[in-house]
Amino acid sequence: MERRLDPLGYKRIVRERRGSYEPLFASGVWRYRELLPPIDPTSIVSLAEGNMPLYEAPGGASYAGVDRLAYLHLGMNPTGSFKDLGMTVAVSAAKAAGMRGVVAASTGNTASSMAAYAARAGLEAHALVPRGRVTQAKLAQMLEYGARIVEVEGSFDDAFAQLDRVADGALQIVNSTNPFRLEGQKCAAFSILEQRGWHVPDWVVLPGGNLGNISAIGRGFREALELHLIDRLPRLALVRADAGTQTRATAIAVGIPQSRERASRELHESDGIELVASDEAIFAAKARIGREGIGCEPASAASLAGLRILRERGRVAPDADVVAVLTGHVLKDAGAVQHAAV
Amino acid sequence: MERRLDPLGYKRIVRERRGSYEPLFASGVWRYRELLPPIDPTSIVSLAEGNMPLYEAPGGASYAGVDRLAYLHLGMNPTGSFKDLGMTVAVSAAKAAGMRGVVAASTGNTASSMAAYAARAGLEAHALVPRGRVTQAKLAQMLEYGARIVEVEGSFDDAFAQLDRVADGALQIVNSTNPFRLEGQKCAAFSILEQRGWHVPDWVVLPGGNLGNISAIGRGFREALELHLIDRLPRLALVRADAGTQTRATAIAVGIPQSRERASRELHESDGIELVASDEAIFAAKARIGREGIGCEPASAASLAGLRILRERGRVAPDADVVAVLTGHVLKDAGAVQHAAV
Repeated sequence: MERRLDPLGYKRIVRERRGSYEPLFASGVWRYRELLPPIDPTSIVSLAEGNMPLYEAPGGASYAGVDRLAYLHLGMNPTGSFKDLGMTVAVSAAKAAGMRGVVAASTGNTASSMAAYAARAGLEAHALVPRGRVTQAKLAQMLEYGARIVEVEGSFDDAFAQLDRVADGALQIVNSTNPFRLEGQKCAAFSILEQRGWHVPDWVVLPGGNLGNISAIGRGFREALELHLIDRLPRLALVRADAGTQTRATAIAVGIPQSRERASRELHESDGIELVASDEAIFAAKARIGREGIGCEPASAASLAGLRILRERGRVAPDADVVAVLTGHVLKDAGAVQHAAV
Repeated sequence: MERRLDPLGYKRIVRERRGSYEPLFASGVWRYRELLPPIDPTSIVSLAEGNMPLYEAPGGASYAGVDRLAYLHLGMNPTGSFKDLGMTVAVSAAKAAGMRGVVAASTGNTASSMAAYAARAGLEAHALVPRGRVTQAKLAQMLEYGARIVEVEGSFDDAFAQLDRVADGALQIVNSTNPFRLEGQKCAAFSILEQRGWHVPDWVVLPGGNLGNISAIGRGFREALELHLIDRLPRLALVRADAGTQTRATAIAVGIPQSRERASRELHESDGIELVASDEAIFAAKARIGREGIGCEPASAASLAGLRILRERGRVAPDADVVAVLTGHVLKDAGAVQHAAV
């Protein structure tokens, strides 16, 4: 990266923007526009995404066995998942490029986010989803925002494989293979840092499906380091479902992650670690998160489940200062709550 | 009100708090703590509520026939509805008073908010809900946060009538009859004003169920006027469902509004107006809102439906500058989307 900026001055600018009511800066993505691809402001499509709370979680810390734990709750974005951070950039770029519409394969969160931003932009949205494996809530969102839904037999991977059949020159693919998506999503790293007064946590733990999120957040921390906004990287921990495409944590039910290489690079650069958690461990962690008044969808809880496993294995120190990323809102999968409660 | 403050200085203080990462000021309610009942900060239970976007809606403006329309989207609160604004104050007050728990009758949104804040506070939560008339998503939230749910035969009004049977000296009722609820909810008025640079809209249109929300928002505008933060009041328009307790907009399915007197006072003070909308008009308006990339639950759309009716009747001028309040997130009632789409 060639960019140069004055770190202290930039931190002040971002803080001032946060306090302002300039429409563009109501977005916790576009507040960092100097660190994003240049897009004509008249093409920017925003829903005031990126203002995620960082919730202190003493109960979760005790459950996992660490000194300090906070949740960055990406489910508090406009469509209820982390996808909005990247979608605002990807859809803005598609609009700026004069595309007719956007298309994505999705387990549900990507498509519902895409549909909302496309509607806001006046673009078509086409969603390829695995039949019977998308929650009612996510399908409802796609319908609400007027997306065209194509149900594909099989898993997410099968839907992804059919993307090229649907995309044409005027329909932009906005899966996380789209580089603009990762540019927006990296702002989750800036949000963690900013809310902690730019104090770097020891570990950042994330659930992983297609692995776009860890790729983006890892990049965000590395850019912050290169720009001297911070002086070291947090270690990343990536938690996947051991049940693969059959997990009940449907948002991470991916067999062949499209961002595998990028994710592996970020794990390497940050001296990170990858592990799997069982559905049983994921749902137990989810219940623990809810007990502190914080609701998330099952996949999100993989982060707390994974942190507990890492502690049990002695891979994370008991005095660690940890941020766990929650990726989706509890309302994204109400059925999972009721299933677990039976 | 006896309070005196320097209006310009206070506006600056609030803006600075918005930019800061002081945990208390991550809340768009507690940023206004001088205007709220005094509660010991150690008892305050917050989930970073109150940071609602104000979305410009040119499509909605054209649908209703007014020059300018924006949606204040209260569904972008932590549990997905406006209830969080009041619940943070009511549950904090209950905790400060040493109560064992909290209790509410609810069509779903109040109880899911109560359950989250009670869990965060370490208090019991008891919910009385009308059997078969609460969406799956809202029941799931109550379960997630560990509330005890009692299903009552009949409507919300029947559930409300049974409150006294459940409440005891150590269980605080947190329905909107609780004065702390309205104190928090009035901050929605401050949010509208702040995001518009303290420029007063001509009209603020709200859906009404139990009428706590209009009572609170009306009070918020009046207090802002008394404190010289603004120099006139917006006119309020209250939109109820003509189908009463049978409306498919379940969040406003209330027959006997508990805050009727307060609401009537606010309508009178603001030279406001009350009207009803049919379910057909409400669902048509909801579809129009979704087309602009904004998702809400059916009850929320009563505001746009009502605004359109007021324009048709010539009660609102075509050059009006209007804010319509959306009260709940689309994920609160996914079934309504799919029902409407069939």
